[in-house]
Formats: sequence, C-alpha cells, structure tokens
Amino acid sequence: METAIVSPFQYSLIYNAFSFTFATMAATTIFLWFGRSQVSAAYKNAVTISGLVTAIAAYHYLRIFESWESAYHYVNGVVSATGIAFNDAYRYVDWLLTVPLLLIELVLVMRLTREETVQKGWRLGLAAALMIVLGYPGEIASDIPTRALWGTLSAIPFVYIVWELFSGLGKSIERQPEAVRGLVKQARLLTFASWGFYPIVYMAPYANLAGPDVETVIQIGYTIADLIAKAGVGLLVFAIAARKSEVEAHGTPHAA
Amino acid sequence: METAIVSPFQYSLIYNAFSFTFATMAATTIFLWFGRSQVSAAYKNAVTISGLVTAIAAYHYLRIFESWESAYHYVNGVVSATGIAFNDAYRYVDWLLTVPLLLIELVLVMRLTREETVQKGWRLGLAAALMIVLGYPGEIASDIPTRALWGTLSAIPFVYIVWELFSGLGKSIERQPEAVRGLVKQARLLTFASWGFYPIVYMAPYANLAGPDVETVIQIGYTIADLIAKAGVGLLVFAIAARKSEVEAHGTPHAA
Repeated sequence: METAIVSPFQYSLIYNAFSFTFATMAATTIFLWFGRSQVSAAYKNAVTISGLVTAIAAYHYLRIFESWESAYHYVNGVVSATGIAFNDAYRYVDWLLTVPLLLIELVLVMRLTREETVQKGWRLGLAAALMIVLGYPGEIASDIPTRALWGTLSAIPFVYIVWELFSGLGKSIERQPEAVRGLVKQARLLTFASWGFYPIVYMAPYANLAGPDVETVIQIGYTIADLIAKAGVGLLVFAIAARKSEVEAHGTPHAA
Repeated sequence: METAIVSPFQYSLIYNAFSFTFATMAATTIFLWFGRSQVSAAYKNAVTISGLVTAIAAYHYLRIFESWESAYHYVNGVVSATGIAFNDAYRYVDWLLTVPLLLIELVLVMRLTREETVQKGWRLGLAAALMIVLGYPGEIASDIPTRALWGTLSAIPFVYIVWELFSGLGKSIERQPEAVRGLVKQARLLTFASWGFYPIVYMAPYANLAGPDVETVIQIGYTIADLIAKAGVGLLVFAIAARKSEVEAHGTPHAA
C-alpha cells in the first residue's frame, strides 16, 4: 500500500494520539489488575481478562506508534515517506485477540451458569474472530467490489453478535441484581456503540475518499473506538464486578 | 542457510504471525499466573509451569520476530535479503525448555502419587529433551540422508512419549474425578495433535520442497502448532486445575 503523505499537523496529531493511547491502555491495565484483589472470586477472571484486553492493546499501540514513526521522515518541518510501509495489520492482529476477549469479559461478569458461560463464551468468541478474519481481506483490497464483498461477509457474524448481546443476553440481564442492571446495560451499549464506528471507517473508501485526510480520519477514528471499547468497557466491567461482589457479600455468604 | 526471498505478502504474513504469537503467549502467561491464586495448593505448580511454558515461548517469539525483521529489507514494496541469517535455532532452544515442561504440567495436573509424579516427570521430560536434541542436527543438515537419519533417531523418544501418554497415563486418567476426565483427555489429544504437526513440517525438504513457499509453510505451521501446544494446552491445564480444586473442596476439605 502506498504511504499517504500526511501534513505536519496530521503527522503530529496521529503520532501523539498513538502515544496517548498506549499510556491510557497501560494505565487502565494496571488499575484493573490491582483491582482484581477487590472483587470476589467469582469475578476475578472477568477483571483479569479486562486487563489483558488493555494490555494487548497497549502492546499493539506501542508497535503502531513505532511503525508510524518509521514510515515517515519529519525533518525541518517537512514530512516525507521513508519507503517503509505503515503496518496497519497490527490493528487486525490486535482485534483478533481482543474482540473475542471483550465479549468473554462481558459474559463472565454476568455470572451465568457454567453451561451458559461456556456456551455463550465460545459462540460469541468464535463469531468475533470470524468477523475480524473476514474483514481483513477487504481492508487490504485495492478495489471497492472486493472490499464490499468481504465487508458484507464480515457483517454476518457482526449482526449475530449484536442479536446475541441484545436478545440472548437480554434475558440474563433482567436476572442481574438491580444495583448493577443499569451498569450492565451501559457496558453492552458502549460495546455496541464503539463497534458501530469500525464499519463506518471501513467504508470510507466506498465514498471515494483517499489520501492523507482519509488516513487521518481512519487512524484517529479507530483509536477513539479502541479507547472506548477496551479501556471504557473494561472499567465498566470492573465497576460491575465490584458492585456485585458487595451486593452478594451482604445478601448471601460467600468465600472471598 | 541461504535466505529465501519471500514475497511482500509472505513477509508481512509471517511478520504479523510472529507478533500475534508473542502477544498471545504473553497474555496467556499473565492469565495463568493470576489464575494461580484461584486453584488449590495441589495444582499451583501445574499452573505456574503452564505459565512458564508460554512465558518462555513469548520471549522466543520476540527474538524470532526481531530476527525475521533483521533478515530482510522491506522498502518501497520490495523485499530483499540483508545478508543476516534468520536464526531458526531459537525454535529448538525454546522446545528444549518448553516441551519437557509441557509434559510435566500434564503429569502435575493429574495429581498422581508423589512416586508416580517424580517417575513420569523425569521419564517424559528426559525423553522430550532427547527428542529435540536428536532432531536438531537433521534440521540444519544440508543433505536428505543426514536429515532422515537424525529425524528417525528423534522419532524413537517421540514414539515412547506417545505410548506413555496413551498407555501409561491412560490408567491414571480413568482414576481422575469424572468432572474433569473429558478435559484431561482433551489436553492429551491436543498435545498429541499439535505435536503431529512438527514431524510433517520437518519432512518438507524430503518432498524436494524449497524456497519462499516452503519457508512460509514452515514458519506459519510451527507457529500454529506452538500456539495450540503451549497456549491451548496451558489454558486447558488451568481449566482442569480449577475444576479439580472445586470438586475436591466440596468432596474433601482442603487448604486454599
């Protein structure tokens, strides 16, 4: 893929956004992992995995940052291409790992029966992985029909996940303690809302947009969506886990 | 060994597969080490060692990734060799450490008598180390007869390990609590199935295959096998340990 020559402002904006995101993901990871000791045994895996999602994202944003830096010279106020391609695949590699884990952390914090947890975890996890794998050939395609084909195929598991989140898990949400029902719905909505961003960015080339402005919109857009879907949802999952640990400790005795 | 000039697509595929595997191994390690606190004392070593296996693999995949990067220039869409050899020996160094540990984690999670654990641990561990050591001279040999000779020698401990897993440990599996018997069999099968991949890749040059396509098949093949054998089996061992801790806590009292 040819490197779009961004303006000095765009170069710095994206450069600093990547650095900001690395710091945010790393900080969220540490907060979540410390928080593990504050939730009851039933929720430790949910909080551990929320931290893994932000840890994996922190690693990839460090790589993305370095790849961005090596794709451009920015000397004497002028930006030029070094000839080294910016490796956009890091995003897909990241999503392949983190998107299934994100759905699993949502399922785990709901504390369903073991059978339901295993079943929903596998179904949602596999659908998420399939969605990412089907999206990639379209992302790297140079023509619109190929992009549209893979994008449409990728939308099938996406629709299934949304249906499962709102219909399948909907019934389980009604069984959650009242104190956390609102938070669980928020986590689900935030997951859905941040995900809605990805297909919009994916479709940018359909609108015949190209070059440095689209590159900027894509990089900043994916970055904001990642921040909400990973750090935002992760912190909500922790809040739900902490609240439920408290409610359950008062309601019924449990081993800490 | 001469560096095969891979295509830009192959270069990127392998590059991203190595980065993905580093991230997966590191994430699995952290999950397993946190999970240590969630299993009873009898299974802590099994879970610690499962995490060591993925930690050692994470380290080696970082090295392999860097070695891959330094073996090639990828500038303006063209891949060329830098003259620095890709160091394939990292894989053998990794296996020399991780393959004996993998077998030991399987033995430990079964919680046999102390005598059986020590005996099976040593036998399987030494057989695994011998298998790796005997395989390496063949891997770096430039002629087929030498490769075949060492490959055949290496197959002797391999067959012994398979026999021990299915016959020797088979009886012990029947004595496992019913709730985990299926999981233990899955772990054994996954170990065996992922191992079956290595000799196939090893024999690729017998079929007179060479060049960039074979290089790609070997690198991606070993990477998938490592992901299953280390991260996959490690997570199964954790699931077995967690389930057994639970069953035993309800059946008989135990120290947490």
